[in-house]
Amino acid sequence: MTDAILLTPGPLTTSAETKAAMLSDWGSWDAAFNALTASVCSDLVDIVDGRDEHVCVPLQGSGTFAVEAALGTLVPKTGKVLVPDNGSYCKRIVRILGYLGRQAVVLAHGEQEPADPQRIEAALAADRSITHVAQVHCETGTGILNPLAEIASVVARHDRGLIIDAMSSYGALPIDARTLRFDALIAASGKCLEGVPGMGFVIARRTTLGGASGNSASLAMDLHDQWQYMQKTGQWRFTPPTHVLAALRAAVDQYRAQGGRPARLARYTANCAALVGGMRTLGLKTFLPDALQAPIIVTFHSPPDPAYDFADFYRRVREKGFILYPGKLTAVDTFRVGCIGAIGADTLRAAVTAIAASLREMGVVRLGST
Amino acid sequence: MTDAILLTPGPLTTSAETKAAMLSDWGSWDAAFNALTASVCSDLVDIVDGRDEHVCVPLQGSGTFAVEAALGTLVPKTGKVLVPDNGSYCKRIVRILGYLGRQAVVLAHGEQEPADPQRIEAALAADRSITHVAQVHCETGTGILNPLAEIASVVARHDRGLIIDAMSSYGALPIDARTLRFDALIAASGKCLEGVPGMGFVIARRTTLGGASGNSASLAMDLHDQWQYMQKTGQWRFTPPTHVLAALRAAVDQYRAQGGRPARLARYTANCAALVGGMRTLGLKTFLPDALQAPIIVTFHSPPDPAYDFADFYRRVREKGFILYPGKLTAVDTFRVGCIGAIGADTLRAAVTAIAASLREMGVVRLGST
Repeated sequence: MTDAILLTPGPLTTSAETKAAMLSDWGSWDAAFNALTASVCSDLVDIVDGRDEHVCVPLQGSGTFAVEAALGTLVPKTGKVLVPDNGSYCKRIVRILGYLGRQAVVLAHGEQEPADPQRIEAALAADRSITHVAQVHCETGTGILNPLAEIASVVARHDRGLIIDAMSSYGALPIDARTLRFDALIAASGKCLEGVPGMGFVIARRTTLGGASGNSASLAMDLHDQWQYMQKTGQWRFTPPTHVLAALRAAVDQYRAQGGRPARLARYTANCAALVGGMRTLGLKTFLPDALQAPIIVTFHSPPDPAYDFADFYRRVREKGFILYPGKLTAVDTFRVGCIGAIGADTLRAAVTAIAASLREMGVVRLGST
Repeated sequence: MTDAILLTPGPLTTSAETKAAMLSDWGSWDAAFNALTASVCSDLVDIVDGRDEHVCVPLQGSGTFAVEAALGTLVPKTGKVLVPDNGSYCKRIVRILGYLGRQAVVLAHGEQEPADPQRIEAALAADRSITHVAQVHCETGTGILNPLAEIASVVARHDRGLIIDAMSSYGALPIDARTLRFDALIAASGKCLEGVPGMGFVIARRTTLGGASGNSASLAMDLHDQWQYMQKTGQWRFTPPTHVLAALRAAVDQYRAQGGRPARLARYTANCAALVGGMRTLGLKTFLPDALQAPIIVTFHSPPDPAYDFADFYRRVREKGFILYPGKLTAVDTFRVGCIGAIGADTLRAAVTAIAASLREMGVVRLGST
């Protein structure tokens, strides 16, 4: 494979087997495809130890489509959603709620500050009209890990609904539906499961979803309708991304064969350690302290050197076979490097070498932040 | 290739080259991928002879997502949409409008009756509060072809907006944006372009789309926002289905190399003739008269024989390598056979042979409708 390695939060570098699974065409009405859908959905519930009280509803489109679908279907029109905000994907949830006409209460945090369960608790106690909390697990904007289990117990204690954007954590970081109560947990094909992009999915509490008829102001994103139809027919309501689903089936097979979630986390943790260790040796600085860093995507301060320019840096690193990701912070100049995909620590070490060479070529001398 | 041939309205049987284009991973932020998006969008506008006054906005998800996005973005909240209804995809538009809270006026037609420009004209003259007409070009529910050019001139004469669901006609049947005025024309990757499913697209009038800010009650399906962001960055707002787009690029390359729209229509016309001719030789009857039949998908009456059962028939034909499609009519028992995909008339003839053998095995003797 001669493709550049994607060091991004998705699309990722996927395995040759996963891509090869797209070399067949599937009929969307055919029993073989229905079985494919059912088997993937069943495995997706298992990955978070969901049981009979959870269902998986797949949805065409990107992960954001599934986030919007979960919010629009599960939050009633009169609902009010608390959004602990420490990054761009939290802000995107607030933007979605604005579109959907659902009230949002933003609980602002710094971008280096994990969502605070005590502040969430206080906010819920102070405003009993808040019906839901929408919590990003790993905020891809910075790479920060939020304390999901603690937040979930606060939300459960206050008997509100919890909607989790687990886009870049699902499949790698521990989430146990037996002990962590949520209404919906959202992720997508092209993240830690290492499938290709093109579909999202929502692991929903069966009773909550069952009562969510009539909430959605969109047919395409009505998860209740999608679920009801699937239960009745085994089929997706509208043309499914057949090849994307076949690739996800192959990716999940590899995931299981490789040891499932613990093995995935171990590999990403090793990737992240190789990356961060190597970059620090060069003198580059991470935006987050290690204790808050999820091993998914790492934000680095841009070198404070006048010779540094992200576009030039990106191009040089790309020529050496690695695709980086821009920063998503407004106040601080940063870039991001992903640790996920069908890659190992050797790849990350090679990426650090390419980064070092690129900075050297550019004449960037000052690497650490001031 | 040993996959069963898909004789369905999509997903289709795609070429080996189209599927092989999915064997690379693409970075969604990378210039190479932006160029891929731009080149596909430019070609999609060209296919309907759109010019500077038209833009192509791609959207993640199935074709229905793009239909909903076009309606939700281009019809203002106070809009009122006339829907000439002669089939299930017309009814789906009405259902979408209900979700979106846009007024719909249904102009009911029989399922064997093409949408009537005179009745549309009368409806527009009678109700000046109708702002748009939503017209399905080829109604996949039956396979009927609606007289799009005549309808478009009626709508233009009355100065209303026209939104065309060209899902199963775009790329095969003639649509000339230089003479046929529309606000939006919607299709998808996995139809007559013979890509894989996973994205839709809207060819929109630039000025209309430019004025459509603030209409959409969905972030994910806000075409105006998607377009603005793409113009600014060259990127999709949310993770694009990278492999699906790469496959579409390959499919459009083949489309052009094979002679473009006229060649595609000629192949499908030959496919349809081989299918219908063969089936009639067996004694099977088409639901539509030939004059109304688009060469995309053909509805056949189920054999009026007690030994006939669709599930059994489907299974037997599938064992012989062909996947059929169920009927979508409530009043009449039918099944459908698609003519589109990377297949030629020989394939359709082989399918007829498989159908004949299957009916024989089942002991189905009476084949024509009563």
